[in-house]
Amino acid sequence: FVEELRETGNDSSGASNSGCESSKESSRSSTPVLDTDRTDRLRDKMRRRTESGDHWFSLEFFPPRTASGAVNLISRFDRMGSGGPLFIDVTWHPAGDPGSDKETSSMMIASTAVNYCGLESILHLTCCNQTKEKITGYLSKAKRLGLKNIMALRGDPMGADWEEEEAGFNYATDLVKHIRCEFDDYFDICVAGYPTGHPEAESYDEDLRHLKEKVDAGADFIITQLFFRADTFLKFVRDCRAIGITCPILPGIFPIQGYQSLRQLVKLSKLEVPEEIMQVIEPIKDNDAAIRNYGIEQAVGMCRVLLESGEVPGLHFYTLNREVATMEVLRQLGLWIEDPRRTLPWAVSAHPKRKVEDVRPIFWASRPKSYIYRTQDWDDFPNGRWGNSSSPAFGELNDYYLFYLKSKSSKDALLKMWGEELTSEQSVYEVFTSYITAQPNVAGHKVMCLPWNDDPLAPETNLLKDELDKVNRRGVLTINSQPSINGKPSSDPIVGWGPPGGYVFQKAYLEFFTSSENVTALLKVLKKYEPRVNYHIVNVHGQNTTNAHDMQPNAVTWGIFPGREIVQPTVVDPVSFLYWKDEAFALWIEQWAKLYEDESPSRMIIKYIHDNYFLVNLVDNDFPLDNCLWQVIDDMFELLDNPPEEQPAEQTAEQPNDEQSDKEQPGK
Amino acid sequence: FVEELRETGNDSSGASNSGCESSKESSRSSTPVLDTDRTDRLRDKMRRRTESGDHWFSLEFFPPRTASGAVNLISRFDRMGSGGPLFIDVTWHPAGDPGSDKETSSMMIASTAVNYCGLESILHLTCCNQTKEKITGYLSKAKRLGLKNIMALRGDPMGADWEEEEAGFNYATDLVKHIRCEFDDYFDICVAGYPTGHPEAESYDEDLRHLKEKVDAGADFIITQLFFRADTFLKFVRDCRAIGITCPILPGIFPIQGYQSLRQLVKLSKLEVPEEIMQVIEPIKDNDAAIRNYGIEQAVGMCRVLLESGEVPGLHFYTLNREVATMEVLRQLGLWIEDPRRTLPWAVSAHPKRKVEDVRPIFWASRPKSYIYRTQDWDDFPNGRWGNSSSPAFGELNDYYLFYLKSKSSKDALLKMWGEELTSEQSVYEVFTSYITAQPNVAGHKVMCLPWNDDPLAPETNLLKDELDKVNRRGVLTINSQPSINGKPSSDPIVGWGPPGGYVFQKAYLEFFTSSENVTALLKVLKKYEPRVNYHIVNVHGQNTTNAHDMQPNAVTWGIFPGREIVQPTVVDPVSFLYWKDEAFALWIEQWAKLYEDESPSRMIIKYIHDNYFLVNLVDNDFPLDNCLWQVIDDMFELLDNPPEEQPAEQTAEQPNDEQSDKEQPGK
Repeated sequence: FVEELRETGNDSSGASNSGCESSKESSRSSTPVLDTDRTDRLRDKMRRRTESGDHWFSLEFFPPRTASGAVNLISRFDRMGSGGPLFIDVTWHPAGDPGSDKETSSMMIASTAVNYCGLESILHLTCCNQTKEKITGYLSKAKRLGLKNIMALRGDPMGADWEEEEAGFNYATDLVKHIRCEFDDYFDICVAGYPTGHPEAESYDEDLRHLKEKVDAGADFIITQLFFRADTFLKFVRDCRAIGITCPILPGIFPIQGYQSLRQLVKLSKLEVPEEIMQVIEPIKDNDAAIRNYGIEQAVGMCRVLLESGEVPGLHFYTLNREVATMEVLRQLGLWIEDPRRTLPWAVSAHPKRKVEDVRPIFWASRPKSYIYRTQDWDDFPNGRWGNSSSPAFGELNDYYLFYLKSKSSKDALLKMWGEELTSEQSVYEVFTSYITAQPNVAGHKVMCLPWNDDPLAPETNLLKDELDKVNRRGVLTINSQPSINGKPSSDPIVGWGPPGGYVFQKAYLEFFTSSENVTALLKVLKKYEPRVNYHIVNVHGQNTTNAHDMQPNAVTWGIFPGREIVQPTVVDPVSFLYWKDEAFALWIEQWAKLYEDESPSRMIIKYIHDNYFLVNLVDNDFPLDNCLWQVIDDMFELLDNPPEEQPAEQTAEQPNDEQSDKEQPGK
Repeated sequence: FVEELRETGNDSSGASNSGCESSKESSRSSTPVLDTDRTDRLRDKMRRRTESGDHWFSLEFFPPRTASGAVNLISRFDRMGSGGPLFIDVTWHPAGDPGSDKETSSMMIASTAVNYCGLESILHLTCCNQTKEKITGYLSKAKRLGLKNIMALRGDPMGADWEEEEAGFNYATDLVKHIRCEFDDYFDICVAGYPTGHPEAESYDEDLRHLKEKVDAGADFIITQLFFRADTFLKFVRDCRAIGITCPILPGIFPIQGYQSLRQLVKLSKLEVPEEIMQVIEPIKDNDAAIRNYGIEQAVGMCRVLLESGEVPGLHFYTLNREVATMEVLRQLGLWIEDPRRTLPWAVSAHPKRKVEDVRPIFWASRPKSYIYRTQDWDDFPNGRWGNSSSPAFGELNDYYLFYLKSKSSKDALLKMWGEELTSEQSVYEVFTSYITAQPNVAGHKVMCLPWNDDPLAPETNLLKDELDKVNRRGVLTINSQPSINGKPSSDPIVGWGPPGGYVFQKAYLEFFTSSENVTALLKVLKKYEPRVNYHIVNVHGQNTTNAHDMQPNAVTWGIFPGREIVQPTVVDPVSFLYWKDEAFALWIEQWAKLYEDESPSRMIIKYIHDNYFLVNLVDNDFPLDNCLWQVIDDMFELLDNPPEEQPAEQTAEQPNDEQSDKEQPGK
């Protein structure tokens, strides 16, 4: 409830530059959950953590103003999610059409956090000046979207002429009662507590009685307004306990981040900043860095007192949609846990209907949000989904949707990375190579992303860097790969996932675009690698070549754990590959070609690749042996460099897409 | 159609002595099938084998006269099935109530071959003197039991006063038409061919025309009556082809096995034994061994000519329910393939509704037929069957049923193996030890089976022999075990299964009965092995102790194959363990205790074990490391030998089933 503090421009800063912090985001669960956590309610998780004395933290965000702000906030969810918050909450912004389908609405931001970022989330809801029908509509929609927790607030009356309505919502208590009445026990409900009393309350005691009413009406826990002294909160907790409030009470922590935001806060919240704080801040009010450092120090000190009191099971942070200060406080407190244990190798969505999901195709590994979007209408996610009997139906690509085409980088930044002007297919190869090697391109810019990869290479992929460099230079344009793994501990910091005491495995995988000339050579070479290597080769027209047995899925990541069945979370599935193909080829045009003028040579080069290249995936089934896929590519180059002289006729006959590969190539 | 040759007493001979040949039967698929074979029809398999030039063989049996004959025939199915027949067929014995539910009926024997032995089977059916309703009833029942192939025969008219009936079945053709009319294309249909013409036919040509009619009516292939010269068959095939019969024609091979049976055959079939054969046989007619050797030699020579002709894709053998001669012929021809490739580590049932079955609990590893019987009413066999959501309902134990209690050995033989008189629990330990070590017991008899194991130890278990010997001597009475395996090739002759190019894995498993005193020590020791070792410990009363997570199944055998999902065919499932417990404890009483007089000391000792011992299973989850389960048992013995002196009170508190273990033990 400090959304009033949102600062213009803040929510679009620093996103693309700090992307490197989250390079593993695509394949990591954002919260360190155990299996049981996937099904449990927030209040159960909270109770378990409290009982075990395992302190947690949570993070509050407000909805952004613009679509690009939304893209950045979602990246921030991923980055801040990687530290392991128990939940995040999203404020209700009555002026921002909060219940709508706009990508900036409170409803959609909270839904995105749950569904696409895998974060347990609380949606704020204010009831002041709302009809019951409207509120019920919001709650039904939230439920439909997979939201399970509501922060029930009164909200600020609009205008000064507010009066109590007989049958309306006058207090948060009315909203809590309404939620319990209409939705029974479905939602976990949180309410607000005011350590110094609500500014409009007649007295501190009167306000405490109101809080007791809210809890008695069915609230599960309390989050407090911010405060500046640990004693303020601890007294408040004692007073609550004294009148019979027994539920968890979480302190709202506000790390001071700037002089202006503090002043604004004081004015809006009618809080008083203690004299000892003002005395430090006033002299340094023009030094943002100094104030932020002080704010961190002050917050850390206060949090230590709170945690040591034994009264505080977890800390709630008002982030103001900023990362640095909160993360630093959490790091100093030892609550920020980088590289939390992953439940599965990919980020698990927090939507309740996806809780049984335990297998995905490898193709969307770098575009997990697109995958979730395109499968959002699926009723379940069983293994059988990838069997022979039922083929999955993927949702249509939708170029409006936030995750499909919007890049976190501006057009200008993309042109710098991917080339202001392309002169040949070779220039495209160089973009890929720059991305792989993390070296500047010819124009001196680092290539931080590609249309198929929003972030720099994951550490796991980095293990393959030298090989990837070599093949991209020659037009094997890699967009996805994984090394083989033969039984590493599930606790391995780079490739581990799942419960402790297990072993994880992978088959080597390589996916790339390449020319039809290369594919012709590749197909000859692949005959030597039967049945060790499985391949699928397809062009934009759907011309498809494969040696997959009966179009069955091939498990390429699996884990063996104590006392469990085998888990095989990643497969190369022939059916879904054809859906992925549409998306992968479309990204050439939508994200790259459209940066250039119609009919421009640069655009024509990308268009030519889109029309003529093949998308290839290779799996090395012999996971205990050294990965042979590089040898396959080497053999292909060797064949291209030293073609056999005899039988040119046969060679032509085997060339796929023959009629097209003879066309004149633009830019050559 | 040589069932007239069945010889009294033959079907109960040699079963228990030749059991050692089939020691792996319990965990091996009887036919070397590929995945696709599991769903394909017999005619498709035949076509594929013919196209690939891969010669096959098939085996004909007739139904036994007695229940113990049935038990022996089923053992013979398992042993002869291990050589890899494409199918077996079971003759229709009109005098033996062939369509009934008796365990000796043609219908039940064929059903058993399909359902319990995993053999592709053809049921013979004769139509002469039968109503359409009766025939339709038989066919419906056959379909319900999972039979998919019918050999359509006229059968011999009963008595001399047979006349053609206007609307009845007069010829096999009528039956073929009826099957196609009533059951469409459901059944594959086989008909009989007579290389020298049917004895009742007007002429050879007339008989060929009848055969053409049968094929035109819808038969899929032909099996011929026996013959003695390759030329006879080859001319017959040429004549068939000449009049437009294009379907497969399989030669019926009859290895001469004795003088009497040959004479009887000549009389009944109205066949003429060629002079050159009679000249050899007459002088040695009293030397059974010499005649059998000649019969083998003669059959091998004839088969070689047939196979080399290129006209013969497979050979059909009239076994007369005997093993030796047919197996020898097949071995000499190189068609008998011991240790065929296994599709899964356990024998796959050939019932069409079980074709998707790909996981079983490990407990029934030595009693697969009991498992199939108890799950015969299940509609499907998905992985999910072993998940949390649905617990399987096992069929009731039925002490009538053929597979549950009937032992292949006589009561007398069992008493020799398991002790005419038991004097203490120690005598029971010695029986187990004799079984494990394959050494004679104190009375000088080898222990070839135990109530939980019909056959001597499997080669795989043999790898553990020394350890098993040691622990059984001290009252850890093992009934099931497997070693850990960390990625052996799927082609491994001992532990391999599944398609080529894969890798198979196992977690070490040990299951045993032991005293409550031992269990008390074991539970203390197991604390050191958390979470590496999972255990389930239960007594006959259902008192159950486990550290299994959420009662989930633990996969203990799995395989990774090119281009496929993970296969995990064997699990330790907590729910089914409680069903298995009932069966495992009941076997003490039903198979062992009941050998002795009521109230006799021997019976009381077994009863005491049944009432007081625990059934324990242990899984070592760390499959890449050396199996730790022996260390667990050693630690248990160590603790028993050197109990800590302090805290006797705590020790008592942890003892399971405390009130019972203090009872006086009989025989001590």
